[in-house]
Amino acid sequence: MPVVRPSGRMPDQLRAVTIERGYTRHAEGSVLVSFGQTRVLCTASVDNKVPPFLRGKGEGWVTAEYGMLPRATHTRSDREASRGKQGGRTLEIQRLIGRALRACVDRNALGERTITLDCDVLQADGGTRTAAITGAYVALVDAVRWMQARKELTRDPIHGAVAAVSVGIYQGVPVLDLDYAEDSGCDTDMNVVMNDGGGFIELQGTAEGHAFRRDELDALLGLAETGIAELLAAQRAALDGPRP
Amino acid sequence: MPVVRPSGRMPDQLRAVTIERGYTRHAEGSVLVSFGQTRVLCTASVDNKVPPFLRGKGEGWVTAEYGMLPRATHTRSDREASRGKQGGRTLEIQRLIGRALRACVDRNALGERTITLDCDVLQADGGTRTAAITGAYVALVDAVRWMQARKELTRDPIHGAVAAVSVGIYQGVPVLDLDYAEDSGCDTDMNVVMNDGGGFIELQGTAEGHAFRRDELDALLGLAETGIAELLAAQRAALDGPRP
Amino acid sequence: MPVVRPSGRMPDQLRAVTIERGYTRHAEGSVLVSFGQTRVLCTASVDNKVPPFLRGKGEGWVTAEYGMLPRATHTRSDREASRGKQGGRTLEIQRLIGRALRACVDRNALGERTITLDCDVLQADGGTRTAAITGAYVALVDAVRWMQARKELTRDPIHGAVAAVSVGIYQGVPVLDLDYAEDSGCDTDMNVVMNDGGGFIELQGTAEGHAFRRDELDALLGLAETGIAELLAAQRAALDGPRP
Amino acid sequence: MPVVRPSGRMPDQLRAVTIERGYTRHAEGSVLVSFGQTRVLCTASVDNKVPPFLRGKGEGWVTAEYGMLPRATHTRSDREASRGKQGGRTLEIQRLIGRALRACVDRNALGERTITLDCDVLQADGGTRTAAITGAYVALVDAVRWMQARKELTRDPIHGAVAAVSVGIYQGVPVLDLDYAEDSGCDTDMNVVMNDGGGFIELQGTAEGHAFRRDELDALLGLAETGIAELLAAQRAALDGPRP
Amino acid sequence: MPVVRPSGRMPDQLRAVTIERGYTRHAEGSVLVSFGQTRVLCTASVDNKVPPFLRGKGEGWVTAEYGMLPRATHTRSDREASRGKQGGRTLEIQRLIGRALRACVDRNALGERTITLDCDVLQADGGTRTAAITGAYVALVDAVRWMQARKELTRDPIHGAVAAVSVGIYQGVPVLDLDYAEDSGCDTDMNVVMNDGGGFIELQGTAEGHAFRRDELDALLGLAETGIAELLAAQRAALDGPRP
Amino acid sequence: MPVVRPSGRMPDQLRAVTIERGYTRHAEGSVLVSFGQTRVLCTASVDNKVPPFLRGKGEGWVTAEYGMLPRATHTRSDREASRGKQGGRTLEIQRLIGRALRACVDRNALGERTITLDCDVLQADGGTRTAAITGAYVALVDAVRWMQARKELTRDPIHGAVAAVSVGIYQGVPVLDLDYAEDSGCDTDMNVVMNDGGGFIELQGTAEGHAFRRDELDALLGLAETGIAELLAAQRAALDGPRP
Repeated sequence: MPVVRPSGRMPDQLRAVTIERGYTRHAEGSVLVSFGQTRVLCTASVDNKVPPFLRGKGEGWVTAEYGMLPRATHTRSDREASRGKQGGRTLEIQRLIGRALRACVDRNALGERTITLDCDVLQADGGTRTAAITGAYVALVDAVRWMQARKELTRDPIHGAVAAVSVGIYQGVPVLDLDYAEDSGCDTDMNVVMNDGGGFIELQGTAEGHAFRRDELDALLGLAETGIAELLAAQRAALDGPRP
Repeated sequence: MPVVRPSGRMPDQLRAVTIERGYTRHAEGSVLVSFGQTRVLCTASVDNKVPPFLRGKGEGWVTAEYGMLPRATHTRSDREASRGKQGGRTLEIQRLIGRALRACVDRNALGERTITLDCDVLQADGGTRTAAITGAYVALVDAVRWMQARKELTRDPIHGAVAAVSVGIYQGVPVLDLDYAEDSGCDTDMNVVMNDGGGFIELQGTAEGHAFRRDELDALLGLAETGIAELLAAQRAALDGPRP
Repeated sequence: MPVVRPSGRMPDQLRAVTIERGYTRHAEGSVLVSFGQTRVLCTASVDNKVPPFLRGKGEGWVTAEYGMLPRATHTRSDREASRGKQGGRTLEIQRLIGRALRACVDRNALGERTITLDCDVLQADGGTRTAAITGAYVALVDAVRWMQARKELTRDPIHGAVAAVSVGIYQGVPVLDLDYAEDSGCDTDMNVVMNDGGGFIELQGTAEGHAFRRDELDALLGLAETGIAELLAAQRAALDGPRP
Repeated sequence: MPVVRPSGRMPDQLRAVTIERGYTRHAEGSVLVSFGQTRVLCTASVDNKVPPFLRGKGEGWVTAEYGMLPRATHTRSDREASRGKQGGRTLEIQRLIGRALRACVDRNALGERTITLDCDVLQADGGTRTAAITGAYVALVDAVRWMQARKELTRDPIHGAVAAVSVGIYQGVPVLDLDYAEDSGCDTDMNVVMNDGGGFIELQGTAEGHAFRRDELDALLGLAETGIAELLAAQRAALDGPRP
Repeated sequence: MPVVRPSGRMPDQLRAVTIERGYTRHAEGSVLVSFGQTRVLCTASVDNKVPPFLRGKGEGWVTAEYGMLPRATHTRSDREASRGKQGGRTLEIQRLIGRALRACVDRNALGERTITLDCDVLQADGGTRTAAITGAYVALVDAVRWMQARKELTRDPIHGAVAAVSVGIYQGVPVLDLDYAEDSGCDTDMNVVMNDGGGFIELQGTAEGHAFRRDELDALLGLAETGIAELLAAQRAALDGPRP
Repeated sequence: MPVVRPSGRMPDQLRAVTIERGYTRHAEGSVLVSFGQTRVLCTASVDNKVPPFLRGKGEGWVTAEYGMLPRATHTRSDREASRGKQGGRTLEIQRLIGRALRACVDRNALGERTITLDCDVLQADGGTRTAAITGAYVALVDAVRWMQARKELTRDPIHGAVAAVSVGIYQGVPVLDLDYAEDSGCDTDMNVVMNDGGGFIELQGTAEGHAFRRDELDALLGLAETGIAELLAAQRAALDGPRP
């Protein structure tokens, strides 16, 4: 007897994914990505400087910052700027986004420039970090195209695409792309970041309740591979048109 | 010979104003307000608690927080959460928004509840604080209606409307609703908050360069009165329909 | 029937104002200013450097910091150094003082120097920010004279005088220079900064309770003009003698 | 042709592991764990309180904090207490340790108590977080035994053992338990936390350079299972004797 | 041949000491103390609460905070409130002042009240901590008298007087009450806190340059005893009159 | 009738002192020092830079940082890194250690280098600061020998030895080297730092309860001289062998 997901989705079904380029106008890349009700604004900002540890090496840097508007969530969370520090969860997520995006960039081709990906969650319904990575990739490509249009680069620094999705075991059944209702009722979940060559860039699986077996892990990885293939296709479709 | 404003507007002409209710779904009130290219997301969150200094007095509280996404601006600004504190400008603006909104609320009718107005700038082009006040008022009314629909209030705590606009002297001519191009090239500007009874709630005029004369002040106040009348009408129009 | 102000003053009467130069000995300018029981120590410090955003431009900078001793007030307030941050009110006031003083300085004539005005409230009884601006102007002039005596300047960077006063509506009557008893029982108050040419540099009017009408605003501005004329005279008188 | 690991170990060979109980005397559990040259002091402290979000629910809490002495590393790192905040890496690791240990604890059996695991790295040579988890488990059991000896518990809150190890691909070959020389020269590494039922509690795999294929992942997981079986045996051996 | 102190004082001569009670009006005790050009404002604030560690024990608390106005010194120092933390020197001094004053208070007689001594340096010329202790004692007595006048105490909580002075070796000669010129040119200095029974409460001697011998220590202690006797007399004289 | 010290020691008897060199391997000097149950890990780190105030002067710097592991004490203390600041006690101690060690170093002979002494308390039982100074001296010498072995110094920058001990009055009797049981039941204690020429470098005596008389002070100083002579001998013995 099949489990009914709260959303009525099939176990291997993503939420509706939209990727809207040029959402704001000042950033070199600006994307509003939605995974169902989760909406994240991802901007890419180019700066002609690198952090101190890279100065003079001819290499660039790609980094990320993550934030959640106080009322992106069901109940209001404190504003981190007002509390005076970013929480552990925020730091963990922004480190993850940064690593994920660096995995598809040739930093020598970028030259001594930094691209900062700001991922700000306007509305949260589970999966904000995977939506952020998936959207930030598109913002990153737009920022690189902006540099290319200004003849600032001699080679393309993007060597592949990156997308991310969550998977988990909900009421005993492996499912793809957890929403908040599933996430909060779920023992095991895993965030998976992959590239378009089918390689894994990050795996972060956590079981606070039920530890997962090797066969469950295999099922989860299979779902993730399916979902990421769809997300990579959505990124390509979004990037095929002209930037608004 | 008339001054040409960078935007081609007439001296007494507002930018296009839009007020979109129900922009996000979790908050009790959620409004995206645009003054031209300036876009601010205003959410109103209801909490059944009051700050310590009000406990046990039967009164409510209305407060505001203000933030700017790092790339809302032409060049990226540091994220305040990452720097570990809110800057003076941020604190000054959020104090202003809070005072402005409290001016139209009967805090006894609200009971021991706090309404927090989060005003987050998604895109900045001058006038973010006046757009924030104008939009936050609508979010506040929606939050009050939400409480009324749940029969939580016996009296209406809203006793009037509040809106805000900037005015300034650009190339010697008093103009209404400065955009970024005018703001940065302007000696004198003033933010004006008024209610729908024609009363002044806040006046904040600053002249770093040319000090303004009494007759200039009078002209600026006249422009502000005109602009605020239009903004109050836009608020009423937005609130007339059903909440999306 | 006339309102009786708590202090017995007439509506257009300032408190006793004293301006004592050379109050401390290390600073290039050091003034103890009193508006009645409000006492603020204003020092001007000259530094042969400018902030990063001005380096190499040949211009100077004038900035202010404001503090309140913990027991300057009726009940002890927390020490901001101990709480680990300056509050919003402090930041707002010090930004105001800085803008006000910059309005009378030719920063090119100052050269690449910074003058910092530290305004520390020894005793508070309402109107600390207006006393601070009025006193800081005198400290600033003393610091400029100190530089002139050392032949460090080729032109006088001071192009006019600046003073400030508060006005408000107390029990329905517009009054000048509010003390604490009036301030805390008052719906509307406004801080006004003007120069000796009769121009307005800052207007900050706030009505948390009763919004003020245009005619009330006009009456308040008239009182402020009167009061500031007296304060400018007191500054001139103080500066006429030799520095102690 | 076989790869030579810098340490001369076989690909599936752990470093020498020692677990010394009772290393310090005040803590309810105190363990010095060594994975080769990596040495971590893990203490377990029992407190008869729980965090606010658990008060009155009858459940306990297990949490962890992680630190690195400034000169645990090849070059001195800043002291986090002196910099005024814990870095993202620290927060990420201490969150991981806390989750890992909670996975083997029945928090209802613990009652309203908190056990805090402090993991302080005295000397670092790669794998500090996996050593910390492995050692903290032993300290946790000692703290529980201490409570049992005082008859404070009616049921055993420990329901299984937890250990952790790193795996990675070094010069194309999957290897177990990376030391610093391997870690810094390695594209892909993964930290694996498992319980003694063979279930996975955490998987954190990262590839900044070369993305790993599914078959590589399978090889890494196999190595991890082997290594963790040995670590679980070492924990049991350590716990078999009397506490010094 | 005698050493000439920069001030022309004899080796065992204090600077001119003045103790002005009632310097500000809101605090329960308020004293401006001068040791020559060093001027410290000491206020004593009474609060009917104690810190958490003392609640419900029937005992009171006496604590101190110390600050230096930014331009109390020859060159301007950063404002600690603006830097966001108190420096080590500040914390060390305020801990010293608190311990010194607690040494003359019967905390049971005080009841569950806290007296906070704020010592703010208006002008610094060496010896600010010893002036602060000497002045804070007088402010403390005034605060106790204020409570006595309101019949809040059944017994006198003050059991003796406390004063402090610095001594040091300047150009090989032991001298009393170092001013800034001596302090900065001096290898060894010691701060001594004593009570009016001739007992030592604190000794803090430091030799960064020349380590001091036992006979030098004896000479310094002798000078300190002399100086403190004079300071205790000055305190008594100040407290003999009515509070202004 | 003789007082019985809780440990059964004679009044002039030190606890067992051990000094273990080469305790960790990365630091240029690394010493585990024990005074009885008090154990402090002292590392010396050499950096080829000096703080800004010394740049370009050809002088070196010696500084210290102090920390206590959260469960070094009977009950767990908060981790300072997690609280976001170092407490006053910590700052006071690390300033003391730095001054003490600088007193035996010729900073010109050191050249533009900084040696940082990290003193981290693994287990506390009273006297952590005196153990830290005594151990840090040995770590400092090892770091200097390391530089000498690399021919980085032309002259020996160490001009004497430094050690420290506490003394106090326990139940009316002056005793040497207080442990925690004595320290917490003791009115008066003093930390004494001396060099091997018999000179005093620091004296810090505190009497929160009973003020001490001159003859008591003399007795305490006598005990300290005795104890420090033994500690200096222990340092010499430790340094005589080869570094492990």
